[in-house]
Amino acid sequence: MINAGIIGATGYAGAELVRILSNHKEVCIKTLCSKSYAGQKYSDIFGNMRGIADHILQKDDIEKLSKEVDVIFTATPQGYLAGVLTEEVLKNAKVIDLSADFRIKDVAVYEKWYGIEHKSPQFIEEAVYGLCEKNRADIKSARLIANPGCYPTCSYLTVSPALMGGFIDANTVIVDAKSGTTGAGRGAKTTNLFCEVNDSIRAYGLPGHRHTPEIEEQLSGVSKSPVRLNFSPHLVPMMRGILVTAYADLKAKSDGCFPSADEIHSYYKDKYADERFVRVLDKGAYPETRWVKGSEYTDVSIAVDERTNRLIMMGAMDNMTKGAAGQAVQNMNIMFGFDEDEGLGMAPVFP
Amino acid sequence: MINAGIIGATGYAGAELVRILSNHKEVCIKTLCSKSYAGQKYSDIFGNMRGIADHILQKDDIEKLSKEVDVIFTATPQGYLAGVLTEEVLKNAKVIDLSADFRIKDVAVYEKWYGIEHKSPQFIEEAVYGLCEKNRADIKSARLIANPGCYPTCSYLTVSPALMGGFIDANTVIVDAKSGTTGAGRGAKTTNLFCEVNDSIRAYGLPGHRHTPEIEEQLSGVSKSPVRLNFSPHLVPMMRGILVTAYADLKAKSDGCFPSADEIHSYYKDKYADERFVRVLDKGAYPETRWVKGSEYTDVSIAVDERTNRLIMMGAMDNMTKGAAGQAVQNMNIMFGFDEDEGLGMAPVFP
Amino acid sequence: MINAGIIGATGYAGAELVRILSNHKEVCIKTLCSKSYAGQKYSDIFGNMRGIADHILQKDDIEKLSKEVDVIFTATPQGYLAGVLTEEVLKNAKVIDLSADFRIKDVAVYEKWYGIEHKSPQFIEEAVYGLCEKNRADIKSARLIANPGCYPTCSYLTVSPALMGGFIDANTVIVDAKSGTTGAGRGAKTTNLFCEVNDSIRAYGLPGHRHTPEIEEQLSGVSKSPVRLNFSPHLVPMMRGILVTAYADLKAKSDGCFPSADEIHSYYKDKYADERFVRVLDKGAYPETRWVKGSEYTDVSIAVDERTNRLIMMGAMDNMTKGAAGQAVQNMNIMFGFDEDEGLGMAPVFP
Amino acid sequence: MINAGIIGATGYAGAELVRILSNHKEVCIKTLCSKSYAGQKYSDIFGNMRGIADHILQKDDIEKLSKEVDVIFTATPQGYLAGVLTEEVLKNAKVIDLSADFRIKDVAVYEKWYGIEHKSPQFIEEAVYGLCEKNRADIKSARLIANPGCYPTCSYLTVSPALMGGFIDANTVIVDAKSGTTGAGRGAKTTNLFCEVNDSIRAYGLPGHRHTPEIEEQLSGVSKSPVRLNFSPHLVPMMRGILVTAYADLKAKSDGCFPSADEIHSYYKDKYADERFVRVLDKGAYPETRWVKGSEYTDVSIAVDERTNRLIMMGAMDNMTKGAAGQAVQNMNIMFGFDEDEGLGMAPVFP
Repeated sequence: MINAGIIGATGYAGAELVRILSNHKEVCIKTLCSKSYAGQKYSDIFGNMRGIADHILQKDDIEKLSKEVDVIFTATPQGYLAGVLTEEVLKNAKVIDLSADFRIKDVAVYEKWYGIEHKSPQFIEEAVYGLCEKNRADIKSARLIANPGCYPTCSYLTVSPALMGGFIDANTVIVDAKSGTTGAGRGAKTTNLFCEVNDSIRAYGLPGHRHTPEIEEQLSGVSKSPVRLNFSPHLVPMMRGILVTAYADLKAKSDGCFPSADEIHSYYKDKYADERFVRVLDKGAYPETRWVKGSEYTDVSIAVDERTNRLIMMGAMDNMTKGAAGQAVQNMNIMFGFDEDEGLGMAPVFP
Repeated sequence: MINAGIIGATGYAGAELVRILSNHKEVCIKTLCSKSYAGQKYSDIFGNMRGIADHILQKDDIEKLSKEVDVIFTATPQGYLAGVLTEEVLKNAKVIDLSADFRIKDVAVYEKWYGIEHKSPQFIEEAVYGLCEKNRADIKSARLIANPGCYPTCSYLTVSPALMGGFIDANTVIVDAKSGTTGAGRGAKTTNLFCEVNDSIRAYGLPGHRHTPEIEEQLSGVSKSPVRLNFSPHLVPMMRGILVTAYADLKAKSDGCFPSADEIHSYYKDKYADERFVRVLDKGAYPETRWVKGSEYTDVSIAVDERTNRLIMMGAMDNMTKGAAGQAVQNMNIMFGFDEDEGLGMAPVFP
Repeated sequence: MINAGIIGATGYAGAELVRILSNHKEVCIKTLCSKSYAGQKYSDIFGNMRGIADHILQKDDIEKLSKEVDVIFTATPQGYLAGVLTEEVLKNAKVIDLSADFRIKDVAVYEKWYGIEHKSPQFIEEAVYGLCEKNRADIKSARLIANPGCYPTCSYLTVSPALMGGFIDANTVIVDAKSGTTGAGRGAKTTNLFCEVNDSIRAYGLPGHRHTPEIEEQLSGVSKSPVRLNFSPHLVPMMRGILVTAYADLKAKSDGCFPSADEIHSYYKDKYADERFVRVLDKGAYPETRWVKGSEYTDVSIAVDERTNRLIMMGAMDNMTKGAAGQAVQNMNIMFGFDEDEGLGMAPVFP
Repeated sequence: MINAGIIGATGYAGAELVRILSNHKEVCIKTLCSKSYAGQKYSDIFGNMRGIADHILQKDDIEKLSKEVDVIFTATPQGYLAGVLTEEVLKNAKVIDLSADFRIKDVAVYEKWYGIEHKSPQFIEEAVYGLCEKNRADIKSARLIANPGCYPTCSYLTVSPALMGGFIDANTVIVDAKSGTTGAGRGAKTTNLFCEVNDSIRAYGLPGHRHTPEIEEQLSGVSKSPVRLNFSPHLVPMMRGILVTAYADLKAKSDGCFPSADEIHSYYKDKYADERFVRVLDKGAYPETRWVKGSEYTDVSIAVDERTNRLIMMGAMDNMTKGAAGQAVQNMNIMFGFDEDEGLGMAPVFP
């Protein structure tokens, strides 16, 4: 049994951490922190947790917290952790950061896309990018995890096998992504009001949403040539879920033929054969966010358009679970030697 | 470890049973039956259960099923179980029926409100009405459980303490209920299409919805005088959840004064002090269906209108969980001596 | 052709005024004012109005505005108009106020329920309560209209005939109302975010929502005895629409019998026979908010529960149109001698 | 004043025709036909039209209908009109067909993609493809209009200027489209139930949705080289609206530079300068379906990704209005010499 603390417990990702950890056999939620709600009872803000997580919310103090717990989750705005992280903290407790602070290895790229100065670049090298299916071995011994973004996780799991298999041209990838509104956060903004979001859809952050370099860095890592892609996120009137529809030109094989749907589908099946939380759908079945809601699963499938010789890759994920809090817990499980699926085995909730 | 079978596994309540039982430590889902989808793979219909419940759906055959399993859940239309139930079946397996067939003790009342002949009235007396908080002792030794309706469960838990405490006039109760659309079932009806339900609200089944006699029978059982009430259900553009707003005239006490909100609130607190799945909210807090979604909780609270001397009683519940499949599992847990909350401890999913 | 100005043009009611007036043959929208967005282009905030209402938003200045236009609409928070209204303004232009400032004749009642001091009680007597179907004659010659609240309008149109006809006991009325989320306004509040409202329902403002005295005052005006009622509003995950479900005990007639559904239904039919914007549904049909969306209609119907001798009265309305901006325009039409339905004839938008 | 008849009046497109025509000054809705609901009152099915369109629904009989009206709208399944159209009908009345029967000039392509035999290919040549902004002159004198599909209309208006201007490579176009659920029709299918559609998103019809050849044919008509593209539609939990996000590689100019966003934006502005119902948004503003709901507008904008040298083209439209019934009325207006915007001037309804 370990003790956990969460900084940023009153955002949507923080709340999902509390929900998941409350069902985890090896974890005691010791401390919940919140800048905006310190002093209030957690379950007065998130009524679902009445009788389950009735903690009084504490002010953020990562040094103090690191002495009380074994693992700290930071579900905080960009720049927070970089501003407070110390060697002392990392000696005391393992840290899993749900922000982008330590995801990008090139600090200049980070500073350009996020528009803020990085306050502790000395930890970037050490940080392990916590995409479990990719970096399991490194995660095991890490002190600091950069928990991946929701879009990058879904994009990586959807597109990477096609690159690994050499089926597609790395320069032609387009990722058209659709996200539920939890992805926009819990801040009180007019644009996220029910009447502004409901019954509508729109693109945002074009042409250069800041998850772009993270996706490119991860995909480039498994591609023979660097990946430069278009990434277009859309806001959908639903609460949870990300759907990625990605396109790329097929590469002709040495015999001049294009790889077939069967070939690529088998390759995906093999790649994910041992992964507990990635489901490659049967041919002809396509991912839907409703089938993964509330769970750690990512559903993946592909289609080949023989008229255009393009590959269509699709992936669906719950942006709150595998896309944020769930993957953070999966990382924790790996780091502490728990069963990787402990606390994450719940079936998707439908409807 | 016991074996379970479900007849009617492809309706919403059946699917919720599969979801809950798939996380239950003491149960193996042995057989899933479906009239409409027999021969198909369960997870091809409910994609959320891919890799979790890949059973091939069987035809309904309750006799055969009763020999293979320890407990049978029937999530079937009214009249089905009454038409096939035999002493033989009940000797082989315990039966938990999610339909209304055995909920009403007076067969004439059943036949009038449901408009069908009851085919096996000989089992009505034996059947235990499975409202766990009310009939726990009888449930323990039952062979046949009449699992309560969603509206009756929520209405009972919301209104019954006020009657037990003698705070209200039993003749003045009005239950205005609001339900999510899973309550309308999974049949392909135009009226339940997305574009017909979304962004609208309407009453239905007025003035005599057939849950009325069930609610009256249960409330009368705890009231000094028989309860005759108005029950008005509404269809709300949400998926899960029932909210009950009930009204009744306060009864003056012997000193001529009306009972205060504090008094009634304390009484509710006491009544439910030992109940794992009923949460009486703090004074001034009112139930919201989002706080109970996907869970077994019922949230209850009251308000007193001193201008009109009326009591307003409110309750929120997930109609799929405590309102159907969850309560069925709670009944099973009691019947088989498992922890009453086994498989039901999941925190509500928000958002 | 008259000129109109709107103060508070960037709230939902203000925006609906702009939408309706942009289709009105006799009105030119001269000036749009907004405290929060002054200086910006209207259609940059409400993209639907691109090319239709590209006004630059002005600061609020009612005196100045009154010299430029024939009619002023104030779609502003409680207290605004009472704070700035002068005889000079009323001499220059007619004023239609969508706030509650001049709806309640007893200033003490206003101050108690709204918790603010009334700054210009001298105009209360003059103000005409703009419920068109009730006060058409007085509206015609008014300078100052108190445009009714959404709940009061729907409650009045739904319940008043039953009181006028003497069918119900005035002391037993309960109004259970359900509203879309535009009713909560366009302010940036966490509680109104998409992910907080969607897939949930809750009561609010209990036990004494401040529309209560307004409803009581209007219904008492048509009742033989004063009406004191319960009013319970609920927030529904939809954008537009109010549904009122009201209950009352039937009064026995002199022969000891209770009035029949047919009798009451006919009375409603007669009462509204000449009303362009009230539709009494056929017996057995119940109002649904989807059938009135975007239009000026109120749909009304009744049911009798013969088991309890209670009358159920139902009404559906678009809270933005007849419940706010539409009725304001209807009032304007009456005041200026235009056809009462000018600009309001659009059919409801479904779906 | 002309008389109009609608065959297929009880589908969503048919109902939108009734809504729009009921506000049209030059049209009397003479006859409404429905295969499924013949004999019933129209407003008993579509309650929004109570008191507005109370017609008794007739059986389909296009010959008879053609003698009673000046224009016939067929909002019917594929194959219906091709099966019943005769020279006699076209001599009696103008016909505007909302199905795909006469949209594709090559009958073999039609038969392949739609999987049905074309029963009256002799009328294909004469039929004018009713995309008003493209074929206005031909529409004027047409007897038979093939009213465009919703996706093709939105795709064409979004992508065609980029092709006309020679800015993009015709072989690289990808159209990722998102549609509201009215697009799935009003048939009683499980997959379109509220609880199946809500809070989820999915692609469908991949890799070859049957609107593909229609889009290609229209875009090829304005491109220097034939367009072969990917078209991927998605189902979004909203009622009305289509959003197209299209991608294509920029073509370097003769000086080796790529065209700039400013250049392309200006070109779009010019192209649509005189179009009443196409709004090119300011640079940096992107279309949202909420801004066009219930109206005839299509909002269009572009972005250039300078990292990948790709053009992103976006368009939003109401699939029921400009995407179906509205464009049908626009075609009728052109054919009969009415103002092109008569009956179509309503501002978009928000929220």
